[in-house]
Amino acid sequence: MDRRTVSNLLVERLYAPSNGGQGELGYPGELPYTRGIHPLMYRQRLWTMRQFAGYGTPQETNRRFRFLLEQGQTGLSVAFDLPTLMGYDSDSPAAEGEVGKCGVAISSLADMEELFDGIPLGEVTTSMTITSSAAILWAMYLVVAERQGAAWESLSGTVQNDILKEFMAQKEYIYPPRPSMRLVADSIEFATRSTPRFNPISISGYHIREAGATAVQELAYTLGAAVAYVEWTLRRGFAVDEFAPRLSFFFDSHNDFLEEIAKFRAARRIWCKIMQERFGAANPRSLKLRFHAQTAGVTLTAQQPQVNLVRTALQALAAVLGGAQSLHTNALDEAYALPTSEAALLALRTQQVIASETGVTETVDPFGGSYCVERMTDELEAGCWKELDRIDAMGGMVKAVERGHPQAEIARSSYEHQRRIESGDLRIVGVNAHKESQEEPIETLAVDEEAGRRQRARLADLRRRRDSGAVDAALAEVRRAAAGTENLMPPILAAVRAYATLGEICDALRGEFGVYSEATAI
Amino acid sequence: MDRRTVSNLLVERLYAPSNGGQGELGYPGELPYTRGIHPLMYRQRLWTMRQFAGYGTPQETNRRFRFLLEQGQTGLSVAFDLPTLMGYDSDSPAAEGEVGKCGVAISSLADMEELFDGIPLGEVTTSMTITSSAAILWAMYLVVAERQGAAWESLSGTVQNDILKEFMAQKEYIYPPRPSMRLVADSIEFATRSTPRFNPISISGYHIREAGATAVQELAYTLGAAVAYVEWTLRRGFAVDEFAPRLSFFFDSHNDFLEEIAKFRAARRIWCKIMQERFGAANPRSLKLRFHAQTAGVTLTAQQPQVNLVRTALQALAAVLGGAQSLHTNALDEAYALPTSEAALLALRTQQVIASETGVTETVDPFGGSYCVERMTDELEAGCWKELDRIDAMGGMVKAVERGHPQAEIARSSYEHQRRIESGDLRIVGVNAHKESQEEPIETLAVDEEAGRRQRARLADLRRRRDSGAVDAALAEVRRAAAGTENLMPPILAAVRAYATLGEICDALRGEFGVYSEATAI
Repeated sequence: MDRRTVSNLLVERLYAPSNGGQGELGYPGELPYTRGIHPLMYRQRLWTMRQFAGYGTPQETNRRFRFLLEQGQTGLSVAFDLPTLMGYDSDSPAAEGEVGKCGVAISSLADMEELFDGIPLGEVTTSMTITSSAAILWAMYLVVAERQGAAWESLSGTVQNDILKEFMAQKEYIYPPRPSMRLVADSIEFATRSTPRFNPISISGYHIREAGATAVQELAYTLGAAVAYVEWTLRRGFAVDEFAPRLSFFFDSHNDFLEEIAKFRAARRIWCKIMQERFGAANPRSLKLRFHAQTAGVTLTAQQPQVNLVRTALQALAAVLGGAQSLHTNALDEAYALPTSEAALLALRTQQVIASETGVTETVDPFGGSYCVERMTDELEAGCWKELDRIDAMGGMVKAVERGHPQAEIARSSYEHQRRIESGDLRIVGVNAHKESQEEPIETLAVDEEAGRRQRARLADLRRRRDSGAVDAALAEVRRAAAGTENLMPPILAAVRAYATLGEICDALRGEFGVYSEATAI
Repeated sequence: MDRRTVSNLLVERLYAPSNGGQGELGYPGELPYTRGIHPLMYRQRLWTMRQFAGYGTPQETNRRFRFLLEQGQTGLSVAFDLPTLMGYDSDSPAAEGEVGKCGVAISSLADMEELFDGIPLGEVTTSMTITSSAAILWAMYLVVAERQGAAWESLSGTVQNDILKEFMAQKEYIYPPRPSMRLVADSIEFATRSTPRFNPISISGYHIREAGATAVQELAYTLGAAVAYVEWTLRRGFAVDEFAPRLSFFFDSHNDFLEEIAKFRAARRIWCKIMQERFGAANPRSLKLRFHAQTAGVTLTAQQPQVNLVRTALQALAAVLGGAQSLHTNALDEAYALPTSEAALLALRTQQVIASETGVTETVDPFGGSYCVERMTDELEAGCWKELDRIDAMGGMVKAVERGHPQAEIARSSYEHQRRIESGDLRIVGVNAHKESQEEPIETLAVDEEAGRRQRARLADLRRRRDSGAVDAALAEVRRAAAGTENLMPPILAAVRAYATLGEICDALRGEFGVYSEATAI
């Protein structure tokens, strides 16, 4: 019987010189970067241990951030709640019951100030997982930094801001694709001029993969989206090497250990070729694919949750052997709830054990030359080029998304994956193998039901205290700019400084851009 | 600064075609077996998941065995208590306070019958971790099987029985080296004639490594001991291919991920050459090194015990990528106490996740061809040959052990390892890195203090009920045989059948062989 990876790629029983990989390997730190983007990799600098965290009020999340930094975490990663992601204030009827549930509630600059209270933004690196409202939350972050006295030039971090993957997989969009793309290009343009060390986008395969895509689809739709962002930014009149060094990536580290390592290696090689051959980039920093990885949340089981610690450790090792620049390891209770601080700490310890005890950081790309991993790298690359060609034939990623092409392909793969689980071809411990008759529930984090009430009270107070004339004027400026073609970041920054809320700024943009739903696209 | 493995081997920052491994690779299932002993490896048959277990009375351990088998464990592995290991009955003054503490207490055939009650020995594979008393416990096992109606020819499993590693590292010896070696050779001879599917020895690097040896020393002293066992058995008049297929091995799977994988590959290649070139073995089964692996107990920390689940998962993956035939994963609480059933189950689940979810079982030796792992394989092999030459120059392993050579070398490595931990060159999470100020104790298994009392009562009852004339006659036969040169297994079997106790049979042998202590050796 044929054996296949989690992604349905054929696996040979043996890889040997006769059927091993033949792709361009080169040296780490040299084109095409298959073996890594730095010559010394983790010997010189470990990956950033960046645990995604956020729940309840800004105050509660601030405490979790400080706890994680004290425990040796090396970067912050903010999880926002659903209303924030969707551009609604905590006191909006649309936010009812969701405030602080899946992340921290941020409605205004005042919340952002409290979120980073006592954390020097000039010294920490922060990732913010937000997309449709990315420009607004990023503007809040920049203003907090400014008020802390940290120069924008010194800030480092990432804002997710990859809108195409929202249409493809995550479905947290607000505006239609084209005005959404404009907002992304505005952020990239603004970052290129004003925040030279901050990544204005993290082009994300993670959600695509979690939605059921294969490894090849994860690569193709992520890199296809990246091509679109480059093209949209080039239209602003930049040379590619001016902004390309600040594009960053975010991939899933899924269960199939060998395939995942090959995937990360293939991603680097493909991106180097795209940038060089398609866009004529010459700056090595434009050619180097830098990525954050997160272990695969979708593989965690509610059954036997402590077994998730094992899954996550193995997936994290794959990300490290694949050369990740930054890593989030899921907490064992993430299939149930937001992580408790004990679970979050164990997830961080998992990274620290890999970094400190396994020795895999001492040599670069230890799978280099492996008949198996080199062959898988070649195959994933070939599969990705084929899919990228299809997207080009459709007129690029924005058009492909508007046609629903990646959405349909991901749905098909997801169905196939589910079918393999149901047939037992893919086995999951505790789910369709080694089930336990009785499960002891674990303690999970209970988000304070009062968080919503407290946020609403804070917001009511803010609305009373602020200068409402200044707010109205700033929002009018946002609307005016949205109707035209100028960069939206300066008027958004001005509105944020005047304590206009997230919901108000989003509403201004909704008024000009309209809102999108999948139904309207048909 | 030079970077070194856990074993102090130099690690290059990069391995590439110019400095990659050049050793003989071949194909799995073909000489020299670097890539594995079977052409299909885990596609055809997974490793045996064999969790080491035993505590308290035979009855309690029987319950744990049944629990583990129900949860999908595929082989048994018996842990005996210290009195049993050292040849003392549960009612001996020497056993005071130790009965059932670190393993199950077995003093007679009656205990062994209870240990395997309801477990069909013709269908299960059992490993018994016992050495100085191996012949006696193995005889008890054979009689239990016989009384269950299972033919000896059908039995499969292993008895540890590697006495040289006791003198080198584990220090659980009774008699001096030469009569101890005779007992081992007697078992191998007996197995060759009577139990063709049972391994009469598991030549064990595990304890050598746990005592502080390097990976090279683990290889050299284990394979050096194996050479001695082959030589002693050849003197019984067998051809090498008659018994060599039943020699099995047991290695540690330690922290240094890449080095460990290389070590397992090197072990196979060296053994194949030893058997072929030194002993002229021709049967492929004589040339194939089959091994059980256990994750490294010594790496587990009492601090933050749940982190041990991560360490064990990564070490277990190394054993699988190295081609183990059988695996024990330590429970997270083994640094504290005997595992609770919850901890034992999680350890088993760790193996099941690797087997079912990671895909690494689908292709043979995925590191094959890796510049790094091939080079490390070559280096470990070269280091091992060098040490084997030193041992040969001393007149072989028995003489080397009598001189204290491996003991001194292991102590030196252990000291060096400790020095690296104290200097911070080797980092251990929770110990010298990422310490936590407060630790919450975990629940551990409390061995019933009544176990000793119950065992003593059982034994007193046995001594009353058995035919003491028959016992005395059988023990006299053991003494007579020990004074001569005939194989000791038949008189030991007869004594076991008459319900002579472990302590009585050992005493008979002590009377003829004498006892050993390191002090007397100087």
